[in-house]
Amino acid sequence: MDAAEFRRRGKEMVDHVADYLEKIEERPVYPDVEPGYLRSLIPTEAPVEPDSYEDIMKDVERVIMPGAASPACTELETVMLDWLGKMLQLPECFLAGTHGHGGGVIQGTASEATLVSLLAARCKAIRRVQLLDPKKSEAEILSKLVAYTSEQAHSSVERAALIGAVMMKKVPTDSLYAVRGEMLKKILEEDKAAGLIPFYFCATLGTTPSCAFDHIADLGPLCNQENMWMHIDAAYAGSAFICPEFRPLLNGVEYADSFNFNPHKWMLINFDCSAMWVKKRTDIIGAFKMEPLYLKHENQESGLVTDYRHWQIPLGRRFRSLKMWFVFRMYGLQGLQAHIRKQVGLAKEFESLVRADKRFEICAPVVMGLVCFRLKGTNELNQSLLKKITKSREIHLVPCQLSGSFVLRLAICSRSTEFRHIQQAWQHITQLAFELLQEHHH
Amino acid sequence: MDAAEFRRRGKEMVDHVADYLEKIEERPVYPDVEPGYLRSLIPTEAPVEPDSYEDIMKDVERVIMPGAASPACTELETVMLDWLGKMLQLPECFLAGTHGHGGGVIQGTASEATLVSLLAARCKAIRRVQLLDPKKSEAEILSKLVAYTSEQAHSSVERAALIGAVMMKKVPTDSLYAVRGEMLKKILEEDKAAGLIPFYFCATLGTTPSCAFDHIADLGPLCNQENMWMHIDAAYAGSAFICPEFRPLLNGVEYADSFNFNPHKWMLINFDCSAMWVKKRTDIIGAFKMEPLYLKHENQESGLVTDYRHWQIPLGRRFRSLKMWFVFRMYGLQGLQAHIRKQVGLAKEFESLVRADKRFEICAPVVMGLVCFRLKGTNELNQSLLKKITKSREIHLVPCQLSGSFVLRLAICSRSTEFRHIQQAWQHITQLAFELLQEHHH
Repeated sequence: MDAAEFRRRGKEMVDHVADYLEKIEERPVYPDVEPGYLRSLIPTEAPVEPDSYEDIMKDVERVIMPGAASPACTELETVMLDWLGKMLQLPECFLAGTHGHGGGVIQGTASEATLVSLLAARCKAIRRVQLLDPKKSEAEILSKLVAYTSEQAHSSVERAALIGAVMMKKVPTDSLYAVRGEMLKKILEEDKAAGLIPFYFCATLGTTPSCAFDHIADLGPLCNQENMWMHIDAAYAGSAFICPEFRPLLNGVEYADSFNFNPHKWMLINFDCSAMWVKKRTDIIGAFKMEPLYLKHENQESGLVTDYRHWQIPLGRRFRSLKMWFVFRMYGLQGLQAHIRKQVGLAKEFESLVRADKRFEICAPVVMGLVCFRLKGTNELNQSLLKKITKSREIHLVPCQLSGSFVLRLAICSRSTEFRHIQQAWQHITQLAFELLQEHHH
Repeated sequence: MDAAEFRRRGKEMVDHVADYLEKIEERPVYPDVEPGYLRSLIPTEAPVEPDSYEDIMKDVERVIMPGAASPACTELETVMLDWLGKMLQLPECFLAGTHGHGGGVIQGTASEATLVSLLAARCKAIRRVQLLDPKKSEAEILSKLVAYTSEQAHSSVERAALIGAVMMKKVPTDSLYAVRGEMLKKILEEDKAAGLIPFYFCATLGTTPSCAFDHIADLGPLCNQENMWMHIDAAYAGSAFICPEFRPLLNGVEYADSFNFNPHKWMLINFDCSAMWVKKRTDIIGAFKMEPLYLKHENQESGLVTDYRHWQIPLGRRFRSLKMWFVFRMYGLQGLQAHIRKQVGLAKEFESLVRADKRFEICAPVVMGLVCFRLKGTNELNQSLLKKITKSREIHLVPCQLSGSFVLRLAICSRSTEFRHIQQAWQHITQLAFELLQEHHH
C-alpha cells in the first residue's frame, strides 16, 4: 500500500469508525454466535498472493462484527496463530486446529513469552518432583531448580529467572556464538551430581549480539530426555522461517515445549505483537488458572473456547490479531517472503562492502539482516568510531561484545530501506573511519 | 469531539501520517535534544478547561518531533504521570518533578502493576532480612515471606503471589466488604509468632465485586510500622479521585509505597493504560535491573533520564502517554470531572429505581458507577433472572457473590450512556423479573 492508497483507505476507515459509533445502538449488545463460529468463516491458511483491501473490509463486517468483541477477538487470534504456524511449517502439535492440544497466543513482547514459559515449566517441575517425593516442600524444590540459557541470550531471559525466583546458569557457546548439545550436557551432569534439578532451557535462534543459532536439533532431545522444558526464543529471526531456504534453522522445534518470535520485529506488523506457541496448552494454563465468579462464563468448561487470560501475565487483552489478519492478507505469503529476502539481500550487500575494505573485518556469519563488523584494531578504536557515528546523527548503530571484542552492528529493519541507504551508510562510516585513522596517525 | 469533528480530525490525521512517511528522509535520524528537554516545553499541570485540537497538533510538531521517538516517549510519560498525579492530589513524594525520588509509569494492566510492586517488595524484603542475618539463604527467606490482601481483592493479586512464588493470605472484611486495620493486625501477629515474615499488603480501593474501599488510613501506618510494602490497587475507582468530593477515599495514600489505577477503565483513555506511581523509584528499579551492552546508553548514569524498562515486565514500550496527553487536553480537568460525575449520577438514578421496587434490594453502598442489587429471595431465583437477562441479549450484567448471596451488578462504563439507557435497562430487568416471578408462582 503506497502513501496515496493509505490516504484513501485511512479516510475510509475514519468514516467506518464514525459510522460504527453513530449507529452503535442498532448493533446487538451480545454476540449471537456459538463457540468456534469463526474458524469456518475464513480460509484455513493465509493467502499466497495478496487479497484486495475491499475484500478484507467486507470480511470485517461478515466475520468480526457478528462475534464482536470478545469471541471474535479470541477466535481470530487462535486461527491467525494457526495461519502463522503453518507459514513457519511448525509441527502440527503446535497448532490449535479444532481438536489440537497446542496452540498459539499473542504476547506483548518476547520477554513476556519467556517469562510465561519459565513459569509454566516451574509449575510442572514442582508438581513432578512432588509426585515422586510428596514430603518435599515447594520451597525446597524451588531452591534446587535450575534454568539454563546461552551466555549470548537476551537479558530478558535472565530477568525471567529473577522474577520466577529460580537459579539461572549461562551455557558457554562455540566459536560461532551458538550453544551445542554437549555444552549443555556437561553442565547438566555436574548440576545433577550436586543435587540440583535442571528444569528449563531457553534456546535462542538469532541471538541479539550476532544472530547466532543454538543447535536445537541436538539440544531438544537432551532436554526431552532430562524432563526439561525447552523454550525457543527466535524473537528477531523467527520471521525468516516463512522462507523455505531459512526453515532448516528451525529444525528441532519438534522437541520444544514452546516457541516464540516477534512478528512486530520483522514481519511488518506494528508493535506489539509477539507470537507464542505451546505444545500442551494445559501446561501453561495450569500455572496461572484463577476462576473468580466475575470471570466465569458459560463455555469455559466446554473445551471449545480458549481463555487466553490463563496464557499471559495481564488479564485484559487488545484485539491484536486484527493487524495480523490485515497484514497477512494485504501482503500474502509471497509478499512477506519477498520482504524478508530483500532485507537479507541488503545485509549481504553491506557485508560485501565491508569485506572489500581491508581496514574492516566481519565478526560473525551474516545469515539474516544483521551485519557485525569492526575496524581491525583495538576496542578503543572501534568505540571512538561508534562515538563519531553517533555524534554525526546520520545513522544509528548499536554495539555488542563478541569474544571480548567491541563490535558494531548494522541492522536492516525498516520497510523502506533500499540499496542506496546501504551505500550511503557505508560511505558515511568509511568517511568517519578515514578521519579517525588520520587523527590516530597524527 | 462529536462524530462530525472526528471525521474531520481523523482524516487530517491520516494525511499527517502519510506526510510523515513520505517525507521521513528529511527528518533527523537521531534526536538533537538534551535529557529532560520536554518538561520545560509544556505546562506543569493539565489544563482545567479544554485546549483546542489545533493547539494540540501544533504541539506534536513542536514538542514531540524534535525528541522522536524514545526521549519524547519516555519524557512525555513522566510528565503526564505528574499531571495525572496532581489531578489526583497525590502526595508530592509520588511525583517525579525534576528532583523527585518517586514517579509514575504506564503499565498495560493493573495485574502487571500489582506484580511489579510485589516483586519489588519481595526483593526489598529479602535484602532487609539478609542484612540482619547474612547466613539466611534467599530460598529460606522466600519460603517465609507472606503477602496479604482482602478476601474481596481481584484474582490478579493472588496470581501475582503465585508468579512471585510467595505465600498469600486473604484478610477478612467487615460488613461493607472492606479490610480494616485491626483485621490485618490480628493475622500479622499470628504469622509473626509462627516465624513468618509479612512483607506486602495490597489494599483495594473499589473492589471488583462491590466497589468497597479498604481503610488505608489505618492500614497504611500498620504496614509502615511492620516494614511491609503497601500497594494500593484502585484500578476502577481511581479515576474518580480527580473529583474533590471523592478524594477523601484516597486519604492514607501517603503511607503507600505504590499506587495504581486504570485510566483505560473510567477516564476516557483507550485500553491499555494503567497508571502506577512509586514513592522510591530505586525500590522498583533494583528488583529488575539488567544492563547488557546493547541496552546501554550515554545518559543512563546521569540520573536525568528514566529507564522505564526497569519498571515493568516487558522490555519494549509503546508511546501510550500520547493518548493521555490528547485526552487530558481535549477534555480538561473539568471535562473529565463532569464525565465521572455524570456516570455516578446515572448509577444513583439506577439505585433509586431499584430501591423504589420492593421486590429488589441494594446489596452494597453505591459510591461510584456500580450498583449491586438482587431480587429478594434465593440465589437460584437470582441466577435464573441473570440467565433470562443474558439470554435476551439486551444488556450485559456480570454477577458476584457477596456474603454468600448471588448478586447482580450494573456497571455504568460507556461514554455514551444516558439516563434513557438506565431507564430502558431497568424496564427490561423488571419485565424479566415479572415473568420469572409469575413462572415461580405457577
